[in-house]
This record gives sequence, C-alpha cells and structure tokens, in this order.
Amino acid sequence: MDLALALARAAQTRVSPNPAVGCVIATRAGEIIGQGHTQVVGGPHAEIMALRDAEARGHSVVGATAYVTLEPCSHHGRTGPCCDALIAAGIKKVVASIADPNPLVAGQGFDRLRAAGVDVEVGLGAAESRELNIGFFSRMIRKTPWVRLKVAASLDGKTALDNGVSQWITGEAARTDGHAWRARASAVLTGVGTVLEDNPLLDVRLVETGRQPHLVIVDSQLQTPPDARLFVPGRSVWIYAGARSNPEKEEALKSRGATVTHLPNTQGKVDLAAMLANLARREINELHVEAGHKLNGSLVREGLVDELLVYLAPKFIGSGMGMASHIHAAGPLTELAGALPLEFRSVEMLGPDLRIVARVTARDTF
Amino acid sequence: MDLALALARAAQTRVSPNPAVGCVIATRAGEIIGQGHTQVVGGPHAEIMALRDAEARGHSVVGATAYVTLEPCSHHGRTGPCCDALIAAGIKKVVASIADPNPLVAGQGFDRLRAAGVDVEVGLGAAESRELNIGFFSRMIRKTPWVRLKVAASLDGKTALDNGVSQWITGEAARTDGHAWRARASAVLTGVGTVLEDNPLLDVRLVETGRQPHLVIVDSQLQTPPDARLFVPGRSVWIYAGARSNPEKEEALKSRGATVTHLPNTQGKVDLAAMLANLARREINELHVEAGHKLNGSLVREGLVDELLVYLAPKFIGSGMGMASHIHAAGPLTELAGALPLEFRSVEMLGPDLRIVARVTARDTF
Repeated sequence: MDLALALARAAQTRVSPNPAVGCVIATRAGEIIGQGHTQVVGGPHAEIMALRDAEARGHSVVGATAYVTLEPCSHHGRTGPCCDALIAAGIKKVVASIADPNPLVAGQGFDRLRAAGVDVEVGLGAAESRELNIGFFSRMIRKTPWVRLKVAASLDGKTALDNGVSQWITGEAARTDGHAWRARASAVLTGVGTVLEDNPLLDVRLVETGRQPHLVIVDSQLQTPPDARLFVPGRSVWIYAGARSNPEKEEALKSRGATVTHLPNTQGKVDLAAMLANLARREINELHVEAGHKLNGSLVREGLVDELLVYLAPKFIGSGMGMASHIHAAGPLTELAGALPLEFRSVEMLGPDLRIVARVTARDTF
Repeated sequence: MDLALALARAAQTRVSPNPAVGCVIATRAGEIIGQGHTQVVGGPHAEIMALRDAEARGHSVVGATAYVTLEPCSHHGRTGPCCDALIAAGIKKVVASIADPNPLVAGQGFDRLRAAGVDVEVGLGAAESRELNIGFFSRMIRKTPWVRLKVAASLDGKTALDNGVSQWITGEAARTDGHAWRARASAVLTGVGTVLEDNPLLDVRLVETGRQPHLVIVDSQLQTPPDARLFVPGRSVWIYAGARSNPEKEEALKSRGATVTHLPNTQGKVDLAAMLANLARREINELHVEAGHKLNGSLVREGLVDELLVYLAPKFIGSGMGMASHIHAAGPLTELAGALPLEFRSVEMLGPDLRIVARVTARDTF
C-alpha cells in the first residue's frame, strides 16, 4: 500500500478534478506484477493502468490482489467502472484505503466487488489517502473546495512594506516549494489588488507540472487589466465580480479568454461563500489562495479558510502589512479566547526560510 | 568531551557570572575516574571538582588526562588557579575545548601547563562550549552582555491584543521552556510598561534553578510601583532611569531593595547602550529580555539585540501589537533590503506551540 500511496502522490499534479489514486497488483506470494496511477482527466483510472501494466509485462492477474488507495468506481463517468474491470480480470482480493466520497460510488464499488465474490478489505492507508485528496473529499462531502491560504512573511509577521513592496520576502527554496503547492491545487485564487500591485503570473513555473491550475480572481468592479500578465496561454481565468456594471470592460476581459461570473453580496462585493460553492461546481478540489492581507482577512472573517501555508523569512521588517486584516467581524478582539484557533501540522526549513503548515481547528472533520 | 560538555550544560543555571565548565578525568586506558562542573560563584571550578571526585573515589590521577570545556584558569580570582592544581596533581595531558576569553587567562593557562610539561590539546567541542557560554564570551570580548529577546506571539505575529491583553498567548510547555531560558541568563530585563500593565513576577518558577537571575527594569521616570510583585525576596532588582527627578520615589524603591542607576540619553530616556555596558560591568553575561513592543523596538533600532527567542502560538489574532515597533531609525522601510537580517538556528514544537531561535546575522562573530 505504501507503493500505491507513492504512486498516488506522484499523480497529484495532473489528475484534478479527479482524486489522485495509486494501484498495485500483487500475486498471492507478494510479487508485484502491475502498478499504475490516475491519468489526466478522461484517461484511465489507477486500477486500469495497473491491469494494463501487468498484461504488458506478461503476467496473469487471475487470483491476484489489488491494493488501491481509493474505492474502485462503480459508475460510468468519463471512463468505465473499474470494479467491472477488476472482476473481469479475475482479481481475487481488493485492499482499499478508503471509501470514495463521491455519492455516485460511496460504498457501491465495494458492494459490487463483494457481490462478484471478490474479498474486500478497507482501511490500510486511509488517513494518508484522504490527505492526498483532501480537496476532492471536501468538494464531494462539503460541496466546497479545500481552501489553503499561502502567506510569505517576515518572522515578525509582515507580508509587505508600508509602500506595498513584497517581492521577494522569502528565498528561492520557499518560492519553489510554493509552486509545488500551486501545482497540486485545482486552482489558484488571488484578488484584483494583487493583480494591480504586482502584475503576477501566478502560474506553475519552478516545478514540473502536468497542467496549469485554473486562475481565479476576486474582482468586484472588474479592474483586472486586459493586458495583465496572468493571461497565460492554455490556462482558464475565472473572474468573480460584483453587480454587472461595465459591459465594455467585461467584453475586453472575455476577449482575453476570461470567464466572468457575477456573484454580488449585499454590499455589491463578491459573495465569497457563493463563489466557493460555484468553484466546487466547477470541480475545484484544492483552492490555493495567494492574495493580500485584505482578501485574506475577508476569507478568514467569513470562516472560509481551512489551512494556512506560511513561509517565514529570517528577518524583521517592523512596520508593514500583516498576514490578514479585519479577521473578526466584531472588530479587534478584546479577549484572547476569540482568536482563530489553529493547529500546527508541520514545520520545516527551506533554505534560510521556514515553512509552517497550520490547519484551522476542526475544519477537517467533514 | 561529550560528558564534559553535558556536565557544563547541567551547571548552566547556577554559575553566573562564571562560565559553565565541565571536566572529566580519564586514565590513559580511557577509564573515567573523576568528573565535575563549575559550582556557584566563589565555589570550586570544574577541574577542582573533578580532581576531588577522583580522590573521593580512591583513584590516583597521576599520568591521567583531563578533558575540560574551557582553558583552566591561571589567575587567583575568587578561587586559586586550576592550572596549578592540575599540575600538582600529576595530570599528564589536558584536552581543552577553547581558550578562556577572560584577558586574565587568555592562553596563559595553556602556557603554564605546557611550561610544567603537561601536554595540551585545544579545540575539541569548541563551538558547543562557546555556545554554552556565549554571554560570558560576549562580556569578556565585547564588554556587553549577550542580549536575547524573548517574544510570545500568535502565528500572525501579534504579541498582545489592541487592549494590551497578552496572557497567555502560548501554552504551558512554551512557558516552561521560557523559564528554562530565564534560568540560564544572568539577568532578566523588562520595561516599566510591562510592569505597570501585567505586574509580573519575572522570576524562575516553572523549572528548577540554582539561583534567581537578577531583574533589570528600564524605567526612565521611575514609575515602578514600590509594591510591585517583582520585588521577590533574594533577588536583586536594578532599575535604570533617566535624569534624576523624583528623590522620594527613588527612596521608596531603594527601601524595597532596588538599585537605581541614572543613565539618561539626550532625550532624557535611558541610554540603552550605556545600560548594557553597565550591566557587563555588573558581570551580566546573558541578558534575557521580556518586554513590550516599544522597548523591544528600541533595542532592535539601536542595534543591541543579538538573538530572538520566538514562541509562536497556533492562532490568528488579526489586530494587535507587533513584536517590535519602530525598529528603523529612518521610519518605515521602503526597500526589503533594509530589513533586519536574521538566521534561524532552531525550530521546535513545544506542545501546541512552536519555538524559533533566530540570531541577528553576524552578531556572534566576536
């Protein structure tokens, strides 16, 4: 199962919106005769790849065991059901990490295998498989993406100088790592403030990737310049705006390939919760946020952030912008008990910088 | 030498203003026959303790090797010279980590041993021995204490709420660790703002200690209340003030046992650099600072901070006080290159919190 999980991990940057799954087929004696992982969307699932691999290597899989990191699918989606393929190939036993949260599967895969006389064991590697696909589980169960907010700051918590300068607070190793996290996300989200201030690309450049994540811009008044650098060929740009107000600008952005969606809240700004629900319908699993302290603060204030990816650089800036402003609807806290509770999940040195992954307490209990 | 260093480490909370030194005596065959470390000030040094230990255990040290983490002293200070004791005992070889930076020793110990026919080797464990005694090295070489600034903050860098509430941002494990760092310091420093706001004890309670560090208060206008909780029996309180202005208040504080020293700068506040020089003359090696963002900022701005001891709690506070304010004399930075450069030395989980030790770049090159 460790190998199957490693295969799943290797597939992570190319499979969205599908879950990253790995599959290993072994004989009763424990010899590995086939392996595979999920391909780009529309391509074969891990089980089919592993069956094909065994065949290509001249092995019979009759009576063999399939180790797979997610319940084999039972429905005709973009591909045929993997259950049927495993049964037809003569697989005797399936060891699966965890049930598929997709309501179209959700245990039916296991039922179908058992009905065909296949032994089924579930649970080995469950936690890791779920972590690898936390965005997929979130979208399937909560109907909203897993929102990971990335922040690069000095040790004293400043993300930019008073004049807005923020490039580059952290070093190359941290920036490369940041691209690896972008690559595993279905989409990268930013605010129009960052677009206007930094004119960023926000694509995946510093690591290899199977595809570019979609780009989402929160832009209430459609201020994104049609000549912004972020209009990278081959990547979808989805702009979420407030009330319809500027048809010419909207046309100009659409002519650049952008999709504009109006989701105003009562203040005429973008309804962020509705935007996330919309992004889930667009099959966004993990949403990687790289925005300024205002949009960060709005996302925190509205309870929409699940995880923080914080890079701390070894410096003191003193006066400057914080990580997230106005995070409490009622204004500045008067008691420490009101602070947003987190849990540190990991901390690591990346060159001269630190990377801290923290999760908002009880956000992953879906 | 590892054992000698461990002995030195164990002595660290009781030896100030002396350096923490460990000594192990071994036969030519490598059998350990005596060990010891520095005692409280005025007590025997490590070498004497190790010689006595060997004697008490019935071993002859004639022809033996002494492993010692600092050059044996050659002068009559509070105790007799260790060199003479080692020579008289018949020690054949001394393996020392590093030369004593004390100008009264500084190589003379080694010279004296060699002149008496003792083999001398220097260098084994040098870096660790120096780190254990970084404050002693700082005082001897730079004539100023090693200044370690302790900060407890939320992940977003807030040390207190807007209303000043700061107890307790971090958990028990971090607070206990903080006391261990207080215990190894010669003195704890705070500002009168913290005294007035929190009425803290600032003593060592959560870990065992051989003695209480002295307490230093930066209090330009002598606002420290004579009934403040910090007047703990058996601990010196040194108040540094600006110009002489309030003789009755000064008398009241002195009657509580405080020592008041006037060191005004041109603005009538405390001249912080002069205060550090004064503290070095008072034999302060490591100075442990626990103050608010204003005094922290002044110490950083004046280039007086060597090291940061930062505890980060897993929470976002949003609006609140930072770690250190007004750290740049010229006002807020306009370029990132102007930030105070640090180096992360270690990062560790302490219960739910993180502890980061960072050093100001190039501060330890004395």
